[in-house]
Amino acid sequence: MRVVKFAIKGEPRWGVLDGPEIALFKGHPEFCDYETTGERIPLKDVHVLPPTLPTTKIVCIGKNYADHAAEMGGDLPTEPLIFLKPSTSLIADKETIVLPSISEHVDHEGELAIVIGSIAKNVKEEDVYDVIMGFTIANDVTARDLQAKDGQWTRSKGFDTFCPVGPWIETEFRPDGQLLETRVDGEIRQHASVDLMIHKVEKIVAHVSQAMTLLPGDIILTGTPAGIGEIEAGQTVEISIEGIGTLTNTVA
Amino acid sequence: MRVVKFAIKGEPRWGVLDGPEIALFKGHPEFCDYETTGERIPLKDVHVLPPTLPTTKIVCIGKNYADHAAEMGGDLPTEPLIFLKPSTSLIADKETIVLPSISEHVDHEGELAIVIGSIAKNVKEEDVYDVIMGFTIANDVTARDLQAKDGQWTRSKGFDTFCPVGPWIETEFRPDGQLLETRVDGEIRQHASVDLMIHKVEKIVAHVSQAMTLLPGDIILTGTPAGIGEIEAGQTVEISIEGIGTLTNTVA
Repeated sequence: MRVVKFAIKGEPRWGVLDGPEIALFKGHPEFCDYETTGERIPLKDVHVLPPTLPTTKIVCIGKNYADHAAEMGGDLPTEPLIFLKPSTSLIADKETIVLPSISEHVDHEGELAIVIGSIAKNVKEEDVYDVIMGFTIANDVTARDLQAKDGQWTRSKGFDTFCPVGPWIETEFRPDGQLLETRVDGEIRQHASVDLMIHKVEKIVAHVSQAMTLLPGDIILTGTPAGIGEIEAGQTVEISIEGIGTLTNTVA
Repeated sequence: MRVVKFAIKGEPRWGVLDGPEIALFKGHPEFCDYETTGERIPLKDVHVLPPTLPTTKIVCIGKNYADHAAEMGGDLPTEPLIFLKPSTSLIADKETIVLPSISEHVDHEGELAIVIGSIAKNVKEEDVYDVIMGFTIANDVTARDLQAKDGQWTRSKGFDTFCPVGPWIETEFRPDGQLLETRVDGEIRQHASVDLMIHKVEKIVAHVSQAMTLLPGDIILTGTPAGIGEIEAGQTVEISIEGIGTLTNTVA
């Protein structure tokens, strides 16, 4: 099932994708048990929104693919390395990444993202799928020059528009060798199996929930494989994950 | 004016402190223009809540007092160094800081906190008081051992209960030599003027808003002076700032 959040006349709504149409849910799918209203609307007629809640926190995992950790330098983290992006960095599929004037080098980072469905604290690795609603795609956009300058990664990864997420939540996805591919103006930049993650989804959710309570709607970005690279105004970034779809954003 | 958020029968409400009583606002003070309902309730009869909104983000500034930066080692940041705490770390005045079992060394960090009142992006230093609702007190509780281990500060500062904030928002406060004092079981640990901040409130708000849009209810912790120290189960931490009040939390 592909769960979509979108706007009708400025009001956020949720639905399930059924071919070219969306069947509308009565409310947030986590709270209405996937009950539909009977209304249907073509996907092409709506403005897709990031599939998040106003209270969503965005947790990210750093250096979680060995080949990307190698291109960044430094040691491999022995545990999932946690950082946060602010919710003000969220944008949707088809929306525009805005390059900040104070950075001279902004990179894409294509990532598989976990969407949390239930309140979760100290979850055991064997139970994490009880609290996962599904998966989506994210771009952990990073001002590489400011990341090096600050040491802490919050500012360089926290600019407005630096967290494209979507286009929807795939509730049936389970990581199992699917290909993650990032293309910039059609040129392949990142191309790797999600199985190459060092710390797997089970370990990540257990580890994060040991520190902070996870809430419905929270998103966890699971790290990026090798092939990060600069994006420039006028370009189009596409991130595809087999079994989920494609997240497309322009750069300005 | 001291703006208090509190619970009546489990429902969050806002009001203004008037001696020992609270005069209730019609809604969130930012949106009801401080209009009161006529109801009054004794402060001692309510459960005070963190003076935040469900969408609040918590931005923190690292190493912003020279003597604290010296006790931590390393260089002084030339610009305000930004990191985030998750909203799940918030607790109120009189609530309990819970020490996580996976850390063996947790410190208090008493701080002056800015409360944002309006949507703010790229604010100029001379205009920051147009977007500030007031000031409160915060404790940037930190698992010092995990901070060193992770490098990124998110996990060590992001545990549930690691962000006591309150007891209220003082709308008339302006930093001007007021004393910040942290006491643990009555023993003075931190004792410094808020004027010793390296990057002042004007610079901090302008700098943060250059990276991320600030929203009503967002909080910015302005850094801690020297004197950080360990807290242990059974202790009581009090942080006082002249002109605002005292934030009191027990440790378990």
